[in-house]
Amino acid sequence: MNVTILGCGLIGASWAALFAAVGRHRVRAWDPSATAREAFPEKVARAQSQLIALGAEAGEPVAVFDRIEEALWGADWVQENAPEKTELKAQLFAHVESAVTRDCIIASSTSSFTWSQLATGLKHTERFVIAHPFNPPHLVPLVELYSPNATTLDAAVKFFSGVGRVPVCMKKEATGHIGNRLASALWREAVHIVADGIATVEDVDRVLIHGPGLRWSVIGTHLGYHLGGGDGGIEHYLRHLGPSQERRWSTLGNPKLTNEVCEMLSAGVQAEVRGRDIAQLEEQRDRQLMEILRLRREHPTIDE
Amino acid sequence: MNVTILGCGLIGASWAALFAAVGRHRVRAWDPSATAREAFPEKVARAQSQLIALGAEAGEPVAVFDRIEEALWGADWVQENAPEKTELKAQLFAHVESAVTRDCIIASSTSSFTWSQLATGLKHTERFVIAHPFNPPHLVPLVELYSPNATTLDAAVKFFSGVGRVPVCMKKEATGHIGNRLASALWREAVHIVADGIATVEDVDRVLIHGPGLRWSVIGTHLGYHLGGGDGGIEHYLRHLGPSQERRWSTLGNPKLTNEVCEMLSAGVQAEVRGRDIAQLEEQRDRQLMEILRLRREHPTIDE
Repeated sequence: MNVTILGCGLIGASWAALFAAVGRHRVRAWDPSATAREAFPEKVARAQSQLIALGAEAGEPVAVFDRIEEALWGADWVQENAPEKTELKAQLFAHVESAVTRDCIIASSTSSFTWSQLATGLKHTERFVIAHPFNPPHLVPLVELYSPNATTLDAAVKFFSGVGRVPVCMKKEATGHIGNRLASALWREAVHIVADGIATVEDVDRVLIHGPGLRWSVIGTHLGYHLGGGDGGIEHYLRHLGPSQERRWSTLGNPKLTNEVCEMLSAGVQAEVRGRDIAQLEEQRDRQLMEILRLRREHPTIDE
Repeated sequence: MNVTILGCGLIGASWAALFAAVGRHRVRAWDPSATAREAFPEKVARAQSQLIALGAEAGEPVAVFDRIEEALWGADWVQENAPEKTELKAQLFAHVESAVTRDCIIASSTSSFTWSQLATGLKHTERFVIAHPFNPPHLVPLVELYSPNATTLDAAVKFFSGVGRVPVCMKKEATGHIGNRLASALWREAVHIVADGIATVEDVDRVLIHGPGLRWSVIGTHLGYHLGGGDGGIEHYLRHLGPSQERRWSTLGNPKLTNEVCEMLSAGVQAEVRGRDIAQLEEQRDRQLMEILRLRREHPTIDE
């Protein structure tokens, strides 16, 4: 397929590498910023080298264009990764719709907006789909999909399965989709724990990596409570421990990101990173992710 | 050390196997139920075989006693894993304090109670410590510790480090400690997503395993937002995206575990397990956990 990437930031580069190397697609890209276009090939190369280390073969080179019309030439699939501003995305969609054929699908990587909020910017909404990845998209398998059009949704499931992703279809749209709603709920309590003086930033993160986060990489939260119910499973759990969960929920925090709290978070993160810069931390994160992805190939996850 | 396990359920068996095989401790155990005592050796053997597969050597056999006094003989460390009832735990602690020397540390695996709530049941509170594991404790490395006594806390850090755990000390006590507060916050939203019809139970769990859960096994939530801020890190994130997080927080759900919601959760879990029983699911979970633990030995986690 001919795939067009709109927006040459980190997400765009990660998608481009994945679509070319794993999907064997012909990938064209565009960004209004010359600086972003110039930095793009190196970002794509970095992601692609990780995919090659995971067993993919180098795909066709990703072509970057100065003019959006050139990038959209012959597109079967457009993946939009522009900044999170509705007017800006609407302008882009207008460009796209004037340049592509009717059967080209337009996917948005948006994390902030719902399908309905962005669809107002399109004429032919039936080919529009939300396709939200988790950073970095070429490594983290999840893609959250939403479209009210079953044909478009099917095409999106097929497209993302074809590039080795795990597509999850939402039955109904929601701000933050699914994963970021879960992540926001967890972070709210993580901020409360720091703000309330229960534990340091670093210790909250250590708890996740060595406790519930480790377990959630292996079984989900609902299935976790099923196992927590012993032989009686989730029904036993809900009957006997449901009321204590509701009491726990009522004690959870409701912090505000005041200057004081923001300073605690910043200072805590600085203590945690121990001088490592963003690139070094990303390198460590990616190495570990790649190792887990490797072992998942030999040991299927519990949902397979 | 001489270690006494009080409570021969799953947590007790998991601790017993770990303390014997990894800690090379002499482990004695007791439970008021004859059925629990009889089933105990097999549970310990199962956990110990997993530890041996991870490279530990078989420890001395764990001895199970009919009378609590015999199990407490010579104890340097007592690990209490009784049902979550304060009166019952207070009775146990009275037994323990009458049987052990003053330098024996008494640790509770409680998930529901704080140090202060249980300490009222003890005479010598200075040697009492909360030591809360995540299931299964012989595989999941996290142990959450709380004691207002620095000497006892130090001893607990040393004890749990010595059995290959990752101890995290709370600065202040809190119901649910740290990990279960995070887990409850996340589950509340996970229940809302199902109750509101946004996604199925199975799809919420799939989102975690292939998205944020996978990432939280590699980097924590605070550090995740640091990387989400790009070159400007957490400070950039808080300044530019803090307000949108606060707006997101205000849209999170506040579900009740009504009969209708409980039925949705039960039916959703049944669909997810596809006929697998609890033992089979635990087997799959443990196999995957063991693989990740193996790779962490060669690839240190980001907090190390």
